[in-house]
Amino acid sequence: AKDFKEKVFEICRMTKNIAEDDPRKVVHSLKVGLAISLVSLFYYYQPLYENFGLSAMWAVMTVVVVFEYTVGATLGKGLNRTLATFMAGTLGVGAHYLASLAGEKAEPILIGFFVFLQAAIVSFIRFFPKVKARYDYGFLTFILTFSLISVSGFRDDEVLEMAHKRLSTIFIGGSACVMISIFVCPVWAGEELHYSIAINLEKLSDLLQAFVCRYFTTLEEGDSVNFPCMEAYKSILNSEISESLANFAKWEPGHGKFKFHHPWDQYLKIGSLTHQCAYRMEALEQYLNSNTQGSSEIRSMIQEVSLEMTMESSKALKELGLSIKTMTRSSSADIHIANSKAASKRLKSLLQSSLREETDLLSVIPVGTVASLLIDITDFTEKLSDC
Amino acid sequence: AKDFKEKVFEICRMTKNIAEDDPRKVVHSLKVGLAISLVSLFYYYQPLYENFGLSAMWAVMTVVVVFEYTVGATLGKGLNRTLATFMAGTLGVGAHYLASLAGEKAEPILIGFFVFLQAAIVSFIRFFPKVKARYDYGFLTFILTFSLISVSGFRDDEVLEMAHKRLSTIFIGGSACVMISIFVCPVWAGEELHYSIAINLEKLSDLLQAFVCRYFTTLEEGDSVNFPCMEAYKSILNSEISESLANFAKWEPGHGKFKFHHPWDQYLKIGSLTHQCAYRMEALEQYLNSNTQGSSEIRSMIQEVSLEMTMESSKALKELGLSIKTMTRSSSADIHIANSKAASKRLKSLLQSSLREETDLLSVIPVGTVASLLIDITDFTEKLSDC
Repeated sequence: AKDFKEKVFEICRMTKNIAEDDPRKVVHSLKVGLAISLVSLFYYYQPLYENFGLSAMWAVMTVVVVFEYTVGATLGKGLNRTLATFMAGTLGVGAHYLASLAGEKAEPILIGFFVFLQAAIVSFIRFFPKVKARYDYGFLTFILTFSLISVSGFRDDEVLEMAHKRLSTIFIGGSACVMISIFVCPVWAGEELHYSIAINLEKLSDLLQAFVCRYFTTLEEGDSVNFPCMEAYKSILNSEISESLANFAKWEPGHGKFKFHHPWDQYLKIGSLTHQCAYRMEALEQYLNSNTQGSSEIRSMIQEVSLEMTMESSKALKELGLSIKTMTRSSSADIHIANSKAASKRLKSLLQSSLREETDLLSVIPVGTVASLLIDITDFTEKLSDC
Repeated sequence: AKDFKEKVFEICRMTKNIAEDDPRKVVHSLKVGLAISLVSLFYYYQPLYENFGLSAMWAVMTVVVVFEYTVGATLGKGLNRTLATFMAGTLGVGAHYLASLAGEKAEPILIGFFVFLQAAIVSFIRFFPKVKARYDYGFLTFILTFSLISVSGFRDDEVLEMAHKRLSTIFIGGSACVMISIFVCPVWAGEELHYSIAINLEKLSDLLQAFVCRYFTTLEEGDSVNFPCMEAYKSILNSEISESLANFAKWEPGHGKFKFHHPWDQYLKIGSLTHQCAYRMEALEQYLNSNTQGSSEIRSMIQEVSLEMTMESSKALKELGLSIKTMTRSSSADIHIANSKAASKRLKSLLQSSLREETDLLSVIPVGTVASLLIDITDFTEKLSDC
């Protein structure tokens, strides 16, 4: 009983967390409820019911299957489903007609052959990477509609009617989804992608600052630093989400600041550069433990110039994030990058010249590695600003 | 016309590539065709048709939607769909009965309210991460069935019949999928995961060997090495695939060498350690360019011991891959790891002692970084063998 109580409590806590974390998820749930209730009218009220018959349930089905969190995903699925139904309906009616010409005995064999053939071919096409990314659902619907229509066993005119009904109910269900997802508190995949990329740049900037501040603070021997916000880079590394968001965004019409042919793939490039930086941050993290920090003299020697370089990179990252957010090109990012590049040059020559006298190489190497990782990040920041 | 010809040619080439790369994809396509053709019998032949009526098309639908590439995915979807249909059917009949008690006027309002409520609640539950990973499809089917049944507008006894028909046809379609996917050239998600993890370890072993061989070969000034097989680590880094395979594998019954409660999550741990190594390999790659290679004297100084350490690690990785493949614990991996650990110690002291006289630090640092990355990889290899 106690276990059960705890579980219920945990579920409540999780519900609260998700709802507070992103209230739009609650709104989305209500939108799904609304869409299904609206389309159910088609099914429930007799006058409409008699018009569409049992196929009206396809409208309900369409809403349940097509309604997704973002506008782009909903639009993509809706278009895929409608177009695929249209094409498969046409071909299915054709196949049915062809088979009926062959006579009563050959008909089931021919139909079975057609169904087998299209299912096998379309299933194989779904393995194509480009198809999988954007048209997977369409091809699934194609198999479904073709099988249903060519196998239905109706007479020719009934088949045509069935195909027509299926197409129109799916169109109605799909449009209801698209309308509601666009006009009731829309969640645009493009906007999500845009802001997530900008926020990742800002997160990176904060992490970089936090790292150098910690690193150049001398630690007691055996002291190990727990760097709580370092976990944040893991959220930067989730590239799958960006990719699917970019795929969804391509379905979306122009909205807000974004035109229809907004260069969404560009965001993926920025995202991948951000990942490269985040990997370096992950590697840097382990140098926060005192036993891998290297000698404190060398650290204090390069401290000033490293701090300058990193701070400038960090500012540049923040500026870049901001200029993505506002979609304006700011010149101050370029200045910060120029500054950090100058500092990076000075750091290199400092390492070369003033460390000659140092003899304990094992304590130099960690510092050198940190320095070169920081220089790497500076380079990536420059590349980012070129995007 | 030429463009079109080229496109057709490209599609043919891609088809050939996919088919040659994994012939099981062709077999899968044929299996889908077979399953749909078989279930279509339910729909086409009159005696069965009269038994199930239009709901027989749910069997066709179920096959199209449930049949997936691996046994685990098919089983998971089939179970999700069947159980969700059963539960939603029961609740839907209940809701329908409740609403009908309220009188003719209140009925549509009550039903609309129920449908809205369950759609909103279930849509929200689908955001829970654990639910999303394994039960997403079940909850989708729940909304679908509940809406269809409670909204159907039938009389009570008709509703019960409809619920019963829907459940039995879905059960028939689902079982057909599961049977065909298990008994006709099965593709087990567990086996896929098992071998992909083992193969990744072997790939890593090869990459490591190839890297040190290249690195310790002296290059001409300005010479830049293209390392073709280095691209291979990118396939190691695709962790999404492993995670979904592990989720699918949990649905699978015991098969071959694997019992039902095989520790699939263990593979994910090994996978994540493999990723850590692959990231290091990615970082190492850039040191193959001659301008970041560091002085050749220092390289040749640490060459012998580094080669030994890395070769031993590489052999250990290969042994570990092999011992995963054969599911036997080999002691030779432990020997290789002990050897590589000893070599790693010697490398550390070598770096500390014999490099004291070296003054050009900028050329030392890259070598030191390479050495420490290689040492890292050795450490990870040890951790891997503990899994």
